[in-house]
Amino acid sequence: SRSINLAVIPGDGIGQEVVAEGLKVLSAVLPQDVKLETEEYDFGARRYHATGETLTDADLDALKRHDAILLGAIGDPSVPSGVLERGFLLKLRFAFDHHVNLRPSKLLPGVATPLAGEPQIDFVVVREGTEGPYTGNGGTIRKGTEHEVATEVSVNTAFGVERVVRDAFARAQARPRKKLALIHKNNVLTFAGHLWTNVFNKVAEEFPEVTTEYMHVDAATIYLVTQPERFDVIVTDNLFGDIVTDLAAAVSGGIGVAASGNINPSGDFPSMFEPVHGSAPDIAGQGKADPTATVLSVALLLRHLGYEAEAARIDEAVAADLGERTGKPARSTSEIGDALAVRVAG
Amino acid sequence: SRSINLAVIPGDGIGQEVVAEGLKVLSAVLPQDVKLETEEYDFGARRYHATGETLTDADLDALKRHDAILLGAIGDPSVPSGVLERGFLLKLRFAFDHHVNLRPSKLLPGVATPLAGEPQIDFVVVREGTEGPYTGNGGTIRKGTEHEVATEVSVNTAFGVERVVRDAFARAQARPRKKLALIHKNNVLTFAGHLWTNVFNKVAEEFPEVTTEYMHVDAATIYLVTQPERFDVIVTDNLFGDIVTDLAAAVSGGIGVAASGNINPSGDFPSMFEPVHGSAPDIAGQGKADPTATVLSVALLLRHLGYEAEAARIDEAVAADLGERTGKPARSTSEIGDALAVRVAG
Ligand SMILES: CC(C)[C@H](C(=O)O)[C@@H](O)C(=O)O
Ligand SMILES: CC(C)[C@H](C(=O)O)[C@@H](O)C(=O)O
Repeated sequence: SRSINLAVIPGDGIGQEVVAEGLKVLSAVLPQDVKLETEEYDFGARRYHATGETLTDADLDALKRHDAILLGAIGDPSVPSGVLERGFLLKLRFAFDHHVNLRPSKLLPGVATPLAGEPQIDFVVVREGTEGPYTGNGGTIRKGTEHEVATEVSVNTAFGVERVVRDAFARAQARPRKKLALIHKNNVLTFAGHLWTNVFNKVAEEFPEVTTEYMHVDAATIYLVTQPERFDVIVTDNLFGDIVTDLAAAVSGGIGVAASGNINPSGDFPSMFEPVHGSAPDIAGQGKADPTATVLSVALLLRHLGYEAEAARIDEAVAADLGERTGKPARSTSEIGDALAVRVAG
Repeated sequence: SRSINLAVIPGDGIGQEVVAEGLKVLSAVLPQDVKLETEEYDFGARRYHATGETLTDADLDALKRHDAILLGAIGDPSVPSGVLERGFLLKLRFAFDHHVNLRPSKLLPGVATPLAGEPQIDFVVVREGTEGPYTGNGGTIRKGTEHEVATEVSVNTAFGVERVVRDAFARAQARPRKKLALIHKNNVLTFAGHLWTNVFNKVAEEFPEVTTEYMHVDAATIYLVTQPERFDVIVTDNLFGDIVTDLAAAVSGGIGVAASGNINPSGDFPSMFEPVHGSAPDIAGQGKADPTATVLSVALLLRHLGYEAEAARIDEAVAADLGERTGKPARSTSEIGDALAVRVAG
């Protein structure tokens, strides 16, 4: 008999509320014979304030034993900027080698977009998750003085770039349009840019059916708002990926519906799935948060674990739910979760 | 009697065509008593192919003697990516210490935007121009092998950050809304992020009338498409500025109308003014390029040299011209230049 052993990290702010709905839908969609076990972890601002800890070695050992991780949101204004980001979110991505950060963008019928006209948006960004300017390399001298110098070092390796580029080519190959765009800034960041471009061109030879293009990150932001239909699969570095996926989320329905997976394709460590949005402390605890991004993250999680049919049922339920929203009164977090649970079960 | 001694760099592709129109409008707007002297320089792809040179010390000495520089566009597919960017554009910005990269975004009536509704867009980005990941620091080891490592170092100094932040505060102070947003990624790039944030907060104390906010660069891309009216003045680092100004141009009428100034406020070196767009080799030589961005760059140039009334006349002429375009047949580059020259002279 099959089973899913899930680590659940509700986290801060609306994280608690949206994760509850994600789990509700997950339970509803799973076949009877799949045993779902969940264990909740209290990472985030409260634990940090209580213990000073963000993510210990013991925590990592515990998380390691799960098949996958579902996370709500981490972050609170009471914690200095960077502490939970570097101490928890990035530490986990690096510790579990989540090098494929997968962020699909699909504008579903009936969903509002800030763009004029009726843009066709259906692409997926493969963002590198363990290198680039995110490694924490760098430092500060003469801190706080008028002579302070602060550096940030973007670290890029052939190993790290090739595995994520290869993953992106495979995903492009599996999609009907078979298109892959590399986004970088190789005219200015020439060291990293040449590495990315050379590896991309080399791997491209193994995927002759995939149509490729290169685009500078600044130009990419223009295309994302003027020709989003142009994109099918995008591969890019950690920082550029952070930026373009927020913009991509904005044009394809907002971060309320943007899901992401922090994936280690090797399976050596569990992958982690989370909505792209943050903890939104301003609306926390009020039942106002839209759990859709978390529910879509559950679909990514199921797909990753091989439950393709169940993942597809969630995607369809979300599409149907979003398509019927126009003109209806706003629902609470749990009402949306209930509606989606009913749909996936039906 | 007054005079302007201008270095003109038409450059590659459409650069030639748009600069001709920029000069046409400049001549038309200047009062009789201002003597305009121009000297043309042949930088760009042709010179690079002919001589291997991009920008020599002798070139810099020659350029240094002018009051300001007007540039069309530099770049051609026949030159490897990075050669002209690093060897000319960035070399000039660094050599002349162009630390204030000024990029206004204003959506003028009648101008198309990819955004739905009728967004009110009127802000200016002050992008740092001599530091960050643009310094060329970094390197590659084991190039071309599977063990290649490439680094890019973002260098940030209290000196460099403070002067551009101070410039941005002064600009915000002089505008009716008096708002300034700092865009960075201080939750991940904590070394540079803390420097920027601390300097920003320190300088803010000298400008109590300016309302400030901080925004991560990823979130900023969302606001730029969902709430662009939120922005008044933005200050940000070199790379984030590169990215957000292209997006800003896209939402406020496209890069066809986006102007920029690479300014050295000290006056120790001439400042350089250029359209944000590139050399567009696909449409070069066909009279299809819109010279408006170059003409608006001429307005920035005039304002920088103290010709405020003339700059305002250009801005008004451009606004009037753009406002009357809808439904009319497309005009050639020189027809648009002629029309603007007539308006500013009138
Ligand atoms: C919170 C932050 C560390 C994170 C990132 O920059 O990756 C977030 O913006 C994201 O995109 O997941
Ligand atoms: C061409 C390139 C070097 C340049 C930059 O990155 O600054 C351009 O994109 C710009 O914005 O002026």
